[in-house]
Amino acid sequence: MITEKLVPNPQDPRLSRTVEGVDELGQSREISVIEERPLTIYLNSQEIVTAMTIGDYPEYLALGFLLNQGMLGESDVVTAIDYDEELEVAVVRTAATTNVEDKLEKKTRTSGCAVGTVFGDMMAGLEGLELPDVPVQTSTFYDLSYKVNHTPSLYMETGAIHGTALCQGNEILAYMEDVGRHNAVDKIAGWMHLNKVSAADKVLYTTGRLTSEMVIKTALMGIPTLISRSGFTAWGVDIARQVGLTLVGRMRGKKFTCLSGQHRLVFDQDPNSVVDESASMRRKGAASG
Amino acid sequence: MITEKLVPNPQDPRLSRTVEGVDELGQSREISVIEERPLTIYLNSQEIVTAMTIGDYPEYLALGFLLNQGMLGESDVVTAIDYDEELEVAVVRTAATTNVEDKLEKKTRTSGCAVGTVFGDMMAGLEGLELPDVPVQTSTFYDLSYKVNHTPSLYMETGAIHGTALCQGNEILAYMEDVGRHNAVDKIAGWMHLNKVSAADKVLYTTGRLTSEMVIKTALMGIPTLISRSGFTAWGVDIARQVGLTLVGRMRGKKFTCLSGQHRLVFDQDPNSVVDESASMRRKGAASG
Repeated sequence: MITEKLVPNPQDPRLSRTVEGVDELGQSREISVIEERPLTIYLNSQEIVTAMTIGDYPEYLALGFLLNQGMLGESDVVTAIDYDEELEVAVVRTAATTNVEDKLEKKTRTSGCAVGTVFGDMMAGLEGLELPDVPVQTSTFYDLSYKVNHTPSLYMETGAIHGTALCQGNEILAYMEDVGRHNAVDKIAGWMHLNKVSAADKVLYTTGRLTSEMVIKTALMGIPTLISRSGFTAWGVDIARQVGLTLVGRMRGKKFTCLSGQHRLVFDQDPNSVVDESASMRRKGAASG
Repeated sequence: MITEKLVPNPQDPRLSRTVEGVDELGQSREISVIEERPLTIYLNSQEIVTAMTIGDYPEYLALGFLLNQGMLGESDVVTAIDYDEELEVAVVRTAATTNVEDKLEKKTRTSGCAVGTVFGDMMAGLEGLELPDVPVQTSTFYDLSYKVNHTPSLYMETGAIHGTALCQGNEILAYMEDVGRHNAVDKIAGWMHLNKVSAADKVLYTTGRLTSEMVIKTALMGIPTLISRSGFTAWGVDIARQVGLTLVGRMRGKKFTCLSGQHRLVFDQDPNSVVDESASMRRKGAASG
């Protein structure tokens, strides 16, 4: 059950800091910059990775990362997620030892690194996956894009950050931001899992690019539609087509491009009725490379 | 010795592909999208990581990645870099076994992943590091920014890509692009190493954000000045101040912000003499999140 809408909290003092410098005229200036801190993620006693994050939802991030890497499957029962703020460590605990721990144990004895290894596993998780073939109205793209652009966010305060929003119809259910665009998606995945949120009727919005990894994560989460302000990669498009994901990019003002799953689009809004983005909105994403 | 300037080749047919889709009016459109392919990097017989790359300079990327992660040091003699296009594997070979291989061998027997492990090593490499305290003229920022914006690039063809340029005075020596902003920097590092290019008199320009990892890499490369179109993170600023790196961000048209090493700036150009960026230039970086 979803208890409340989750949106960014740009006022959280742990997430940004004022720093002094100079501008192009040599005049002193104070600007707000985003915090960035390491989080080391463990799966039981197995160290998996150190991610750089703003640090607002370490439990969601740790769980979502493991889910989206295919390191936790449906048969794995998560019993606890322990976060130690001082050590900057999050430990996801399961009832039984997971396949991944066994595999890493074997793998690391010979050659490997978890991240390298697991990429193959992520692709493997897509085999036979077919996302629900649901219609999606283009009016929701415009509504969601407007709402994300007008929700107070760390981006507006500090720049240099990515946002991802989980949406249902034209409502935002959860909007996460992070210095890594993958972290924002992983936090959404962790939040969905802990709150038992269904995926088949959702749309995922991201400010980041539609790369293979972003498409794979969305597909593994079971979400049939992914939209972005940014552009595509060829492999991202290939994978989206393989799993039946509707992939919409370059979504700005009235314009967008759909390169996969376009048969599902219901063109229920005249693009000419959409107000173009203001200059400040067009900059949104511009500093978030 | 530097033999020739290296700039992107947007016409290389291996780097992009035309894909069909629809626009916001439901009309068929063909757009050019960037390719993205895995490259698995080995250090001798040790598998290190799988990176997603456009694939144009696998040897530079493999070598630069290992250098920038602190996995190869000054005492390591690189004897060969073998790239297998079919297997998508690059192997960097050294005369003797490296510390990293020994360390990974030990580490992976207990818990670890190379990337997680090595982050600590990257920070360790900064201890005692102090970059040369050289003056840098603000006119070079404007010149370089203009030149990068007006060099034909994959970004202009396809979007969804990051660029990094190594500069000397107001000249671009090497301009690399990649789907991962770290890859572009790593390719520059590999190119510098193989061509024995000195770092102390250079400026690095990137379209990506000034995160801790970007700052660490620049510092480990020995380059005293890093400029970017994009924003900062607090930790990135902290590290830059620690090692004496001049850090300039939000560089667009006449504007920029300097948050570290500002005492080295020589304000030799009136910002009002700088022509503001055109709308299409302002979009540069906008799709590259």
